[in-house]
Amino acid sequence: MDELTLEQVAAERALYGPFTQALRELVDTAIRTTVPADDVRRAQAEIEAVTARLRAAPMRETYGVDLRTDGRGRAWGNAVVGLRNAVAPPLTIVQEGRGVRSSFTLGAAYEGPPGSVHGGVLALVLDQMLGEAAGAGGKPGMTATLTLSYRQRTALGDLTAEAWIERSEGIKTWARGEIHSADGLTVEAEGLFILPKWAREAIASGDARTPSPRFFE
Amino acid sequence: MDELTLEQVAAERALYGPFTQALRELVDTAIRTTVPADDVRRAQAEIEAVTARLRAAPMRETYGVDLRTDGRGRAWGNAVVGLRNAVAPPLTIVQEGRGVRSSFTLGAAYEGPPGSVHGGVLALVLDQMLGEAAGAGGKPGMTATLTLSYRQRTALGDLTAEAWIERSEGIKTWARGEIHSADGLTVEAEGLFILPKWAREAIASGDARTPSPRFFE
Repeated sequence: MDELTLEQVAAERALYGPFTQALRELVDTAIRTTVPADDVRRAQAEIEAVTARLRAAPMRETYGVDLRTDGRGRAWGNAVVGLRNAVAPPLTIVQEGRGVRSSFTLGAAYEGPPGSVHGGVLALVLDQMLGEAAGAGGKPGMTATLTLSYRQRTALGDLTAEAWIERSEGIKTWARGEIHSADGLTVEAEGLFILPKWAREAIASGDARTPSPRFFE
Repeated sequence: MDELTLEQVAAERALYGPFTQALRELVDTAIRTTVPADDVRRAQAEIEAVTARLRAAPMRETYGVDLRTDGRGRAWGNAVVGLRNAVAPPLTIVQEGRGVRSSFTLGAAYEGPPGSVHGGVLALVLDQMLGEAAGAGGKPGMTATLTLSYRQRTALGDLTAEAWIERSEGIKTWARGEIHSADGLTVEAEGLFILPKWAREAIASGDARTPSPRFFE
Protein backbone atom coordinates (compact mmCIF):
# COMPACT_ATOMS: atom_id res chain seq x y z
CA MET A 1 0.00 0.00 0.00
CA ASP A 2 1.31 3.48 -0.85
CA GLU A 3 2.17 5.83 1.97
CA LEU A 4 -0.10 8.83 2.36
CA THR A 5 1.12 12.41 2.39
CA LEU A 6 -0.21 14.66 5.15
CA GLU A 7 -2.13 16.60 2.48
CA GLN A 8 -3.89 13.41 1.40
CA VAL A 9 -4.69 12.60 5.01
CA ALA A 10 -6.17 16.09 5.53
CA ALA A 11 -8.30 15.81 2.38
CA GLU A 12 -9.62 12.41 3.37
CA ARG A 13 -10.35 13.64 6.88
CA ALA A 14 -12.43 16.49 5.44
CA LEU A 15 -14.36 14.02 3.27
CA TYR A 16 -14.87 11.01 5.55
CA GLY A 17 -15.17 12.83 8.88
CA PRO A 18 -18.53 14.51 8.09
CA PHE A 19 -19.72 11.47 6.10
CA THR A 20 -19.19 9.07 9.01
CA GLN A 21 -20.64 11.58 11.47
CA ALA A 22 -23.82 11.70 9.36
CA LEU A 23 -23.95 7.92 9.56
CA ARG A 24 -23.54 7.99 13.37
CA GLU A 25 -26.52 10.34 13.55
CA LEU A 26 -28.55 7.94 11.41
CA VAL A 27 -27.62 5.02 13.72
CA ASP A 28 -28.71 7.07 16.76
CA THR A 29 -31.92 8.19 15.05
CA ALA A 30 -32.78 4.66 13.90
CA ILE A 31 -32.87 3.50 17.52
CA ARG A 32 -35.07 6.39 18.67
CA THR A 33 -37.44 7.01 15.78
CA THR A 34 -41.20 6.52 16.11
CA VAL A 35 -42.26 7.26 12.51
CA PRO A 36 -44.89 4.99 10.87
CA ALA A 37 -43.89 1.57 9.50
CA ASP A 38 -44.11 2.69 5.87
CA ASP A 39 -41.54 5.42 6.53
CA VAL A 40 -39.21 2.86 8.12
CA ARG A 41 -39.57 0.62 5.05
CA ARG A 42 -38.85 3.53 2.71
CA ALA A 43 -35.77 4.47 4.75
CA GLN A 44 -34.57 0.86 4.54
CA ALA A 45 -34.87 0.86 0.74
CA GLU A 46 -32.91 4.09 0.49
CA ILE A 47 -30.21 2.83 2.87
CA GLU A 48 -29.86 -0.32 0.75
CA ALA A 49 -29.50 1.82 -2.40
CA VAL A 50 -26.75 3.94 -0.82
CA THR A 51 -24.93 0.79 0.32
CA ALA A 52 -25.10 -0.71 -3.19
CA ARG A 53 -23.56 2.43 -4.71
CA LEU A 54 -20.75 2.54 -2.13
CA ARG A 55 -19.96 -1.04 -3.17
CA ALA A 56 -19.53 -0.10 -6.85
CA ALA A 57 -15.72 -0.06 -6.46
CA PRO A 58 -13.65 -2.94 -4.99
CA MET A 59 -13.85 -2.79 -1.19
CA ARG A 60 -11.10 -3.14 1.40
CA GLU A 61 -11.53 -6.34 3.41
CA THR A 62 -11.20 -4.40 6.68
CA TYR A 63 -9.70 -0.98 7.24
CA GLY A 64 -6.51 -2.04 9.00
CA VAL A 65 -3.86 0.65 9.37
CA ASP A 66 -2.73 3.04 6.62
CA LEU A 67 0.84 4.17 6.53
CA ARG A 68 1.69 7.86 6.37
CA THR A 69 4.83 9.47 5.04
CA ASP A 70 5.64 10.70 8.55
CA GLY A 71 5.97 7.07 9.66
CA ARG A 72 2.83 6.99 11.77
CA GLY A 73 -0.18 4.75 11.27
CA ARG A 74 -3.78 5.72 10.68
CA ALA A 75 -6.36 3.41 12.27
CA TRP A 76 -9.52 4.93 10.83
CA GLY A 77 -11.40 1.63 11.10
CA ASN A 78 -10.75 1.24 14.86
CA ALA A 79 -13.89 0.44 16.89
CA VAL A 80 -13.17 3.21 19.44
CA VAL A 81 -11.24 5.96 17.65
CA GLY A 82 -11.85 5.19 13.97
CA LEU A 83 -12.75 8.29 11.94
CA ARG A 84 -14.45 6.07 9.32
CA ASN A 85 -16.15 3.68 11.74
CA ALA A 86 -19.71 4.65 12.75
CA VAL A 87 -19.58 2.10 15.60
CA ALA A 88 -16.84 4.26 17.20
CA PRO A 89 -18.12 7.30 19.18
CA PRO A 90 -15.27 8.21 18.07
CA LEU A 91 -12.93 9.20 20.88
CA THR A 92 -10.31 11.90 20.31
CA ILE A 93 -7.48 11.01 22.67
CA VAL A 94 -4.86 13.59 23.60
CA GLN A 95 -1.63 13.33 25.55
CA GLU A 96 -1.88 15.32 28.74
CA GLY A 97 0.21 15.40 31.90
CA ARG A 98 1.29 11.93 32.90
CA GLY A 99 -0.85 10.10 30.36
CA VAL A 100 -3.77 10.45 27.95
CA ARG A 101 -7.21 12.02 28.23
CA SER A 102 -10.44 12.12 26.25
CA SER A 103 -13.73 13.99 26.58
CA PHE A 104 -16.60 12.38 24.70
CA THR A 105 -20.35 11.92 24.62
CA LEU A 106 -22.18 8.59 24.54
CA GLY A 107 -25.79 8.50 23.37
CA ALA A 108 -28.53 5.93 22.79
CA ALA A 109 -26.31 3.61 20.73
CA TYR A 110 -24.17 2.83 23.79
CA GLU A 111 -26.95 1.93 26.22
CA GLY A 112 -27.03 -1.01 28.60
CA PRO A 113 -29.27 -0.49 31.65
CA PRO A 114 -31.97 2.07 30.78
CA GLY A 115 -30.39 5.54 30.54
CA SER A 116 -26.95 4.18 31.40
CA VAL A 117 -23.84 3.35 29.44
CA HIS A 118 -23.40 -0.39 28.85
CA GLY A 119 -20.76 -1.74 31.24
CA GLY A 120 -19.02 -3.40 28.31
CA VAL A 121 -18.84 -0.13 26.38
CA LEU A 122 -16.97 1.37 29.35
CA ALA A 123 -14.58 -1.60 29.16
CA LEU A 124 -14.16 -0.99 25.42
CA VAL A 125 -13.29 2.67 26.00
CA LEU A 126 -10.88 1.88 28.84
CA ASP A 127 -9.10 -0.84 26.89
CA GLN A 128 -8.36 1.71 24.17
CA MET A 129 -7.37 4.41 26.69
CA LEU A 130 -4.95 2.18 28.63
CA GLY A 131 -3.41 0.90 25.39
CA GLU A 132 -2.93 4.47 24.16
CA ALA A 133 -1.38 5.48 27.50
CA ALA A 134 1.13 2.65 27.20
CA GLY A 135 1.92 3.64 23.59
CA ALA A 136 2.15 7.35 24.36
CA GLY A 137 4.62 6.55 27.14
CA GLY A 138 6.83 4.69 24.70
CA LYS A 139 5.72 1.28 25.98
CA PRO A 140 3.28 0.01 23.34
CA GLY A 141 1.73 -3.42 23.64
CA MET A 142 -1.34 -5.57 23.17
CA THR A 143 -3.76 -6.15 26.04
CA ALA A 144 -2.80 -9.22 28.11
CA THR A 145 -5.18 -8.66 31.04
CA LEU A 146 -7.73 -5.97 31.82
CA THR A 147 -9.68 -5.56 35.07
CA LEU A 148 -12.65 -3.21 35.43
CA SER A 149 -14.13 -2.06 38.75
CA TYR A 150 -17.54 -0.44 38.44
CA ARG A 151 -18.08 2.09 41.25
CA GLN A 152 -21.52 3.40 40.27
CA ARG A 153 -23.75 3.49 37.20
CA THR A 154 -22.57 5.72 34.34
CA ALA A 155 -25.34 7.89 32.90
CA LEU A 156 -25.42 8.36 29.12
CA GLY A 157 -24.10 11.83 28.19
CA ASP A 158 -20.83 13.71 28.59
CA LEU A 159 -17.90 11.72 30.00
CA THR A 160 -14.16 12.00 30.43
CA ALA A 161 -11.58 9.23 30.48
CA GLU A 162 -7.96 9.31 31.62
CA ALA A 163 -5.22 6.69 31.58
CA TRP A 164 -1.57 6.53 32.53
CA ILE A 165 1.33 4.10 32.90
CA GLU A 166 1.66 2.70 36.42
CA ARG A 167 4.97 0.91 35.87
CA SER A 168 6.86 -1.06 33.24
CA GLU A 169 9.40 -3.85 33.20
CA GLY A 170 10.97 -4.97 29.90
CA ILE A 171 8.18 -5.72 27.40
CA LYS A 172 5.47 -5.51 30.10
CA THR A 173 3.63 -2.33 30.97
CA TRP A 174 0.96 -1.89 33.62
CA ALA A 175 -1.49 0.94 33.01
CA ARG A 176 -4.43 2.36 34.92
CA GLY A 177 -7.40 4.49 33.95
CA GLU A 178 -10.70 5.99 35.05
CA ILE A 179 -13.99 7.24 33.65
CA HIS A 180 -15.77 10.19 35.20
CA SER A 181 -19.31 11.46 34.62
CA ALA A 182 -21.09 14.46 36.15
CA ASP A 183 -21.62 12.12 39.15
CA GLY A 184 -17.85 11.66 39.64
CA LEU A 185 -15.72 8.54 39.27
CA THR A 186 -17.75 5.69 37.79
CA VAL A 187 -15.26 3.04 36.59
CA GLU A 188 -11.61 2.20 37.29
CA ALA A 189 -9.42 -0.07 35.16
CA GLU A 190 -6.01 -1.63 35.30
CA GLY A 191 -4.34 -3.58 32.55
CA LEU A 192 -1.17 -5.34 31.53
CA PHE A 193 0.11 -4.66 28.03
CA ILE A 194 2.80 -6.77 26.35
CA LEU A 195 4.68 -6.00 23.14
CA PRO A 196 4.29 -9.07 20.88
CA LYS A 197 7.35 -10.81 19.42
CA TRP A 198 6.66 -9.84 15.79
CA ALA A 199 6.50 -6.16 16.76
CA ARG A 200 9.73 -6.38 18.79
CA GLU A 201 11.46 -7.90 15.76
CA ALA A 202 10.08 -5.22 13.44
CA ILE A 203 11.23 -2.45 15.76
CA ALA A 204 14.68 -4.06 16.15
CA SER A 205 15.07 -4.32 12.36
CA GLY A 206 14.09 -0.67 11.92
CA ASP A 207 11.33 -1.58 9.47
CA ALA A 208 9.51 1.74 9.07
CA ARG A 209 6.71 0.08 7.09
CA THR A 210 5.49 -1.77 10.15
CA PRO A 211 2.47 0.07 11.57
CA SER A 212 3.24 1.85 14.81
CA PRO A 213 2.42 -0.42 17.75
CA ARG A 214 0.70 2.59 19.28
CA PHE A 215 -2.24 1.65 17.09
CA PHE A 216 -2.55 -2.00 18.05
CA GLU A 217 -5.72 -1.40 19.98
CA MET B 1 -45.56 3.20 28.63
CA ASP B 2 -48.11 0.64 27.45
CA GLU B 3 -47.20 -3.02 27.61
CA LEU B 4 -46.71 -4.71 24.25
CA THR B 5 -48.57 -7.84 23.19
CA LEU B 6 -46.49 -10.65 21.69
CA GLU B 7 -48.19 -9.94 18.33
CA GLN B 8 -46.97 -6.33 18.47
CA VAL B 9 -43.48 -7.51 19.35
CA ALA B 10 -43.48 -9.92 16.37
CA ALA B 11 -44.67 -7.21 13.97
CA GLU B 12 -42.02 -4.77 15.18
CA ARG B 13 -39.34 -7.43 14.94
CA ALA B 14 -40.31 -8.07 11.29
CA LEU B 15 -40.09 -4.32 10.58
CA TYR B 16 -37.05 -3.18 12.56
CA GLY B 17 -34.94 -6.36 12.24
CA PRO B 18 -34.29 -6.02 8.47
CA PHE B 19 -34.16 -2.20 8.72
CA THR B 20 -31.37 -2.25 11.32
CA GLN B 21 -29.56 -5.03 9.48
CA ALA B 22 -29.53 -2.83 6.35
CA LEU B 23 -28.00 -0.08 8.46
CA ARG B 24 -25.31 -2.43 9.83
CA GLU B 25 -24.38 -3.29 6.25
CA LEU B 26 -24.10 0.42 5.43
CA VAL B 27 -21.84 0.98 8.47
CA ASP B 28 -19.61 -1.91 7.35
CA THR B 29 -19.57 -0.69 3.74
CA ALA B 30 -18.80 2.91 4.76
CA ILE B 31 -15.55 1.74 6.39
CA ARG B 32 -14.48 -0.33 3.39
CA THR B 33 -15.63 1.67 0.36
CA THR B 34 -13.19 3.12 -2.17
CA VAL B 35 -15.64 4.99 -4.44
CA PRO B 36 -14.72 8.52 -5.64
CA ALA B 37 -15.15 11.51 -3.31
CA ASP B 38 -18.22 12.81 -5.16
CA ASP B 39 -20.01 9.52 -4.55
CA VAL B 40 -19.17 9.74 -0.83
CA ARG B 41 -20.60 13.29 -0.72
CA ARG B 42 -23.77 12.18 -2.50
CA ALA B 43 -24.17 9.27 -0.07
CA GLN B 44 -23.76 11.69 2.84
CA ALA B 45 -26.52 13.97 1.51
CA GLU B 46 -28.87 10.99 1.12
CA ILE B 47 -28.07 9.68 4.59
CA GLU B 48 -28.82 13.12 6.05
CA ALA B 49 -32.15 13.19 4.21
CA VAL B 50 -33.14 9.76 5.58
CA THR B 51 -32.18 10.86 9.09
CA ALA B 52 -34.27 14.03 8.80
CA ARG B 53 -37.36 12.03 7.76
CA LEU B 54 -36.91 9.52 10.61
CA ARG B 55 -36.92 12.53 12.97
CA ALA B 56 -40.32 13.75 11.71
CA ALA B 57 -42.08 12.21 14.73
CA PRO B 58 -41.09 12.83 18.38
CA MET B 59 -38.10 10.63 19.23
CA ARG B 60 -37.45 8.49 22.28
CA GLU B 61 -34.57 9.87 24.35
CA THR B 62 -32.89 6.47 24.46
CA TYR B 63 -34.44 3.07 23.82
CA GLY B 64 -34.43 1.80 27.39
CA VAL B 65 -36.50 -1.33 28.02
CA ASP B 66 -40.03 -1.91 26.73
CA LEU B 67 -42.40 -3.92 28.82
CA ARG B 68 -44.24 -6.88 27.33
CA THR B 69 -47.51 -8.40 28.46
CA ASP B 70 -45.65 -11.58 29.40
CA GLY B 71 -43.75 -9.60 32.03
CA ARG B 72 -40.40 -9.68 30.26
CA GLY B 73 -38.41 -6.70 29.07
CA ARG B 74 -37.26 -5.88 25.57
CA ALA B 75 -33.87 -4.20 25.35
CA TRP B 76 -33.79 -3.45 21.63
CA GLY B 77 -31.43 -0.50 22.14
CA ASN B 78 -28.76 -2.56 23.95
CA ALA B 79 -25.23 -2.07 22.56
CA VAL B 80 -24.60 -5.83 22.28
CA VAL B 81 -27.94 -7.53 21.71
CA GLY B 82 -30.18 -4.64 20.60
CA LEU B 83 -32.32 -5.50 17.57
CA ARG B 84 -32.68 -1.78 16.76
CA ASN B 85 -29.08 -0.79 17.50
CA ALA B 86 -26.71 -0.88 14.50
CA VAL B 87 -23.73 -0.64 16.86
CA ALA B 88 -24.72 -4.09 18.23
CA PRO B 89 -23.53 -7.06 16.08
CA PRO B 90 -26.22 -8.09 17.43
CA LEU B 91 -25.66 -11.22 19.48
CA THR B 92 -28.41 -13.81 19.82
CA ILE B 93 -27.82 -15.45 23.19
CA VAL B 94 -29.41 -18.79 24.00
CA GLN B 95 -29.54 -20.80 27.22
CA GLU B 96 -27.62 -24.02 26.81
CA GLY B 97 -26.35 -26.58 29.28
CA ARG B 98 -24.97 -24.91 32.36
CA GLY B 99 -25.16 -21.36 31.02
CA VAL B 100 -25.57 -19.27 27.87
CA ARG B 101 -24.04 -19.44 24.43
CA SER B 102 -23.86 -17.31 21.31
CA SER B 103 -22.46 -17.77 17.80
CA PHE B 104 -21.82 -14.53 15.96
CA THR B 105 -19.69 -12.86 13.31
CA LEU B 106 -17.63 -9.69 13.76
CA GLY B 107 -16.56 -7.73 10.68
CA ALA B 108 -14.65 -4.55 9.86
CA ALA B 109 -16.65 -2.40 12.30
CA TYR B 110 -15.19 -4.28 15.28
CA GLU B 111 -11.51 -4.04 14.34
CA GLY B 112 -8.63 -3.15 16.65
CA PRO B 113 -5.23 -4.50 15.51
CA PRO B 114 -5.33 -5.02 11.72
CA GLY B 115 -7.54 -8.04 10.89
CA SER B 116 -8.26 -8.67 14.56
CA VAL B 117 -11.18 -7.99 16.87
CA HIS B 118 -10.60 -4.99 19.17
CA GLY B 119 -9.73 -6.25 22.65
CA GLY B 120 -12.36 -3.93 24.10
CA VAL B 121 -15.06 -5.35 21.82
CA LEU B 122 -14.29 -8.79 23.26
CA ALA B 123 -14.71 -7.26 26.74
CA LEU B 124 -18.03 -5.74 25.63
CA VAL B 125 -19.29 -9.11 24.40
CA LEU B 126 -18.13 -10.95 27.52
CA ASP B 127 -19.68 -8.40 29.89
CA GLN B 128 -23.04 -9.02 28.22
CA MET B 129 -22.55 -12.81 28.19
CA LEU B 130 -21.60 -13.07 31.87
CA GLY B 131 -24.49 -10.78 32.84
CA GLU B 132 -26.91 -12.92 30.84
CA ALA B 133 -25.52 -16.11 32.41
CA ALA B 134 -26.13 -14.65 35.86
CA GLY B 135 -29.66 -13.61 34.88
CA ALA B 136 -30.47 -16.92 33.17
CA GLY B 137 -29.39 -18.74 36.31
CA GLY B 138 -31.83 -16.71 38.39
CA LYS B 139 -29.08 -14.50 39.82
CA PRO B 140 -29.35 -11.20 37.90
CA GLY B 141 -27.14 -8.28 38.74
CA MET B 142 -25.11 -5.38 37.46
CA THR B 143 -21.40 -5.75 36.77
CA ALA B 144 -19.26 -4.93 39.83
CA THR B 145 -15.93 -6.23 38.54
CA LEU B 146 -14.86 -7.82 35.27
CA THR B 147 -11.45 -9.32 34.47
CA LEU B 148 -10.37 -10.28 30.96
CA SER B 149 -7.40 -12.51 30.12
CA TYR B 150 -6.36 -12.40 26.48
CA ARG B 151 -4.77 -15.72 25.44
CA GLN B 152 -4.10 -14.97 21.77
CA ARG B 153 -5.31 -12.56 19.10
CA THR B 154 -8.91 -13.00 17.92
CA ALA B 155 -9.25 -12.85 14.15
CA LEU B 156 -12.30 -11.03 12.73
CA GLY B 157 -14.88 -13.55 11.51
CA ASP B 158 -16.99 -16.29 13.08
CA LEU B 159 -16.80 -16.59 16.86
CA THR B 160 -18.58 -18.33 19.72
CA ALA B 161 -18.99 -17.15 23.29
CA GLU B 162 -20.09 -19.09 26.36
CA ALA B 163 -20.71 -18.03 29.95
CA TRP B 164 -21.90 -19.69 33.13
CA ILE B 165 -22.35 -19.06 36.86
CA GLU B 166 -19.33 -20.11 38.89
CA ARG B 167 -20.93 -19.58 42.31
CA SER B 168 -23.31 -17.26 44.13
CA GLU B 169 -23.76 -16.00 47.66
CA GLY B 170 -26.75 -13.81 48.56
CA ILE B 171 -26.93 -10.90 46.13
CA LYS B 172 -23.46 -11.67 44.69
CA THR B 173 -22.88 -13.92 41.71
CA TRP B 174 -19.53 -14.86 40.16
CA ALA B 175 -19.67 -15.78 36.49
CA ARG B 176 -17.09 -16.96 33.96
CA GLY B 177 -16.97 -16.99 30.20
CA GLU B 178 -14.85 -17.62 27.12
CA ILE B 179 -14.58 -16.64 23.48
CA HIS B 180 -13.43 -19.13 20.88
CA SER B 181 -12.40 -18.55 17.26
CA ALA B 182 -11.28 -21.06 14.63
CA ASP B 183 -7.88 -20.84 16.40
CA GLY B 184 -9.38 -22.06 19.71
CA LEU B 185 -9.74 -20.21 23.02
CA THR B 186 -8.83 -16.55 22.65
CA VAL B 187 -10.20 -14.73 25.73
CA GLU B 188 -11.34 -15.74 29.22
CA ALA B 189 -13.39 -13.57 31.57
CA GLU B 190 -14.60 -13.65 35.13
CA GLY B 191 -16.94 -11.19 36.74
CA LEU B 192 -18.84 -10.35 39.87
CA PHE B 193 -22.47 -9.31 39.47
CA ILE B 194 -24.48 -7.68 42.25
CA LEU B 195 -28.24 -7.07 42.35
CA PRO B 196 -28.72 -3.36 43.11
CA LYS B 197 -30.87 -2.25 46.03
CA TRP B 198 -33.63 -0.68 43.93
CA ALA B 199 -34.05 -3.91 41.99
CA ARG B 200 -34.17 -5.99 45.18
CA GLU B 201 -36.90 -3.72 46.51
CA ALA B 202 -38.86 -3.92 43.26
CA ILE B 203 -38.64 -7.71 43.24
CA ALA B 204 -39.66 -7.88 46.92
CA SER B 205 -42.67 -5.66 46.28
CA GLY B 206 -43.75 -7.79 43.31
CA ASP B 207 -43.85 -4.78 40.99
CA ALA B 208 -44.32 -6.41 37.60
CA ARG B 209 -43.75 -3.11 35.81
CA THR B 210 -40.09 -3.06 36.81
CA PRO B 211 -37.98 -4.26 33.87
CA SER B 212 -36.55 -7.72 34.39
CA PRO B 213 -33.07 -7.44 35.90
CA ARG B 214 -32.00 -9.98 33.29
CA PHE B 215 -31.78 -7.01 30.92
CA PHE B 216 -29.64 -4.70 33.02
CA GLU B 217 -26.61 -5.17 30.81
